[in-house]
Amino acid sequence: MKPLILISNDDGYHAKGINALIEWVSDYGDVVVCAPERARSGFSCAFSATLPLTLKMRRQREGVEVWSCNGTPVDCVKLALAELCPRKPDMVIGGINHGDNASVNTHYSGTMGVTMEGCLKYIPSVAFSLCDSRDDADFSPMESYVRSIVQRVLAEGLPKGVCLNVNFPVAEQYRGVRVCRMAYGSWGQETSKFHHPRGYDYWWMMGRYTNDEPDADDTDNWALTHGYVAITPTHIDVTAYEAMDLIRSWQL
Amino acid sequence: MKPLILISNDDGYHAKGINALIEWVSDYGDVVVCAPERARSGFSCAFSATLPLTLKMRRQREGVEVWSCNGTPVDCVKLALAELCPRKPDMVIGGINHGDNASVNTHYSGTMGVTMEGCLKYIPSVAFSLCDSRDDADFSPMESYVRSIVQRVLAEGLPKGVCLNVNFPVAEQYRGVRVCRMAYGSWGQETSKFHHPRGYDYWWMMGRYTNDEPDADDTDNWALTHGYVAITPTHIDVTAYEAMDLIRSWQL
Repeated sequence: MKPLILISNDDGYHAKGINALIEWVSDYGDVVVCAPERARSGFSCAFSATLPLTLKMRRQREGVEVWSCNGTPVDCVKLALAELCPRKPDMVIGGINHGDNASVNTHYSGTMGVTMEGCLKYIPSVAFSLCDSRDDADFSPMESYVRSIVQRVLAEGLPKGVCLNVNFPVAEQYRGVRVCRMAYGSWGQETSKFHHPRGYDYWWMMGRYTNDEPDADDTDNWALTHGYVAITPTHIDVTAYEAMDLIRSWQL
Repeated sequence: MKPLILISNDDGYHAKGINALIEWVSDYGDVVVCAPERARSGFSCAFSATLPLTLKMRRQREGVEVWSCNGTPVDCVKLALAELCPRKPDMVIGGINHGDNASVNTHYSGTMGVTMEGCLKYIPSVAFSLCDSRDDADFSPMESYVRSIVQRVLAEGLPKGVCLNVNFPVAEQYRGVRVCRMAYGSWGQETSKFHHPRGYDYWWMMGRYTNDEPDADDTDNWALTHGYVAITPTHIDVTAYEAMDLIRSWQL
């Protein structure tokens, strides 16, 4: 039986990035796509506790089914696993995201939400993101890397509780691959205030990102700014083991 | 100057848990509360990229201001830091959540979203949750523990990038505190299908949780089922360092 690959994203089922991904990975298995019906950037691992979820079949060809869902990226994965996948997928892929999901964006990213959800279900899972948030971003330089990584993960799996967060810089050719850690970075100037004609204030979430350790050459941010593909192995166990003794010493 | 404590949650500004917390911690500093105007459980680290955010002052007394926001728990923290706090807070607290945020729920929790956001801003941050999701849950047994932990964190801070996820079992008296790791656990039977009178199917997100390592006595789930307060030090760097050599060996 062919491998089964479940794909979702946070930009919506119609986005250019997810459609490039579908084309490439359908060479390696049957593909079920369940993606948000509209853009859901910044949805992290959110799921919908109070929204009735609906599915729409968008298109179908031999070995590829594309569904949309009115929920979050994580809802898409949960619903696809429960209702759409004919068997347990061999791999879950989030992306290709229009925009960077490196450093602390890992926590906000709906693309990473997809990937974490796959990983929480003990399925080998990968997120792909391109540091270009334009609708018509050019994903073609990524193709051979995406194909290699998908084939490798299908063949070898990933350690329990570990998924891959793969980010690509904007370049016609990459300088290679670096396996990195997540950089520490900060968002600032995050709110932008406006006055509504009806007489009240409102704010848009914005923000400027700063890499807080620009000289550290082992981070995803460093790799991306130097033209490398950044692969950050990411785990679902977020325990800070190194801090346990300190907290124990507090004798609470 | 008194310490400044920023509080948010995912159950909403009106919830019993956050109001118990406000009462207790206002003994240790000035308190700014900015919490969702309605329940936002399961919102993880989601922020609102497309929603215009609004704030409402709900009540005020000497040293305590309570605001509500139409956004997510993370929006509440970002907006409070930018617009409501007269200085950088000395501590961010999420909770007290009505319901368990242990194990993999860490990833879905809006309470942990609050705490991660504080930690991402390099502010000592703690989440408190009680394993009782009822509106009228009894938070009183937690009081002395919450007070001790808040005082300790205000006095000593926390290591960079580390926050605390503190869960309390339902008990009149606790057997003590255990500093734990996050258990591996799984949600199953997550979707519940219904047929709408207008002729389409829809699903509610539900789920049953299983602790996948019930015999491991070093986990948060174990502590909670055995009557202990579970403190899980949690870090924002989710890099799986132990998997880096494996991925490097793939020579992608």
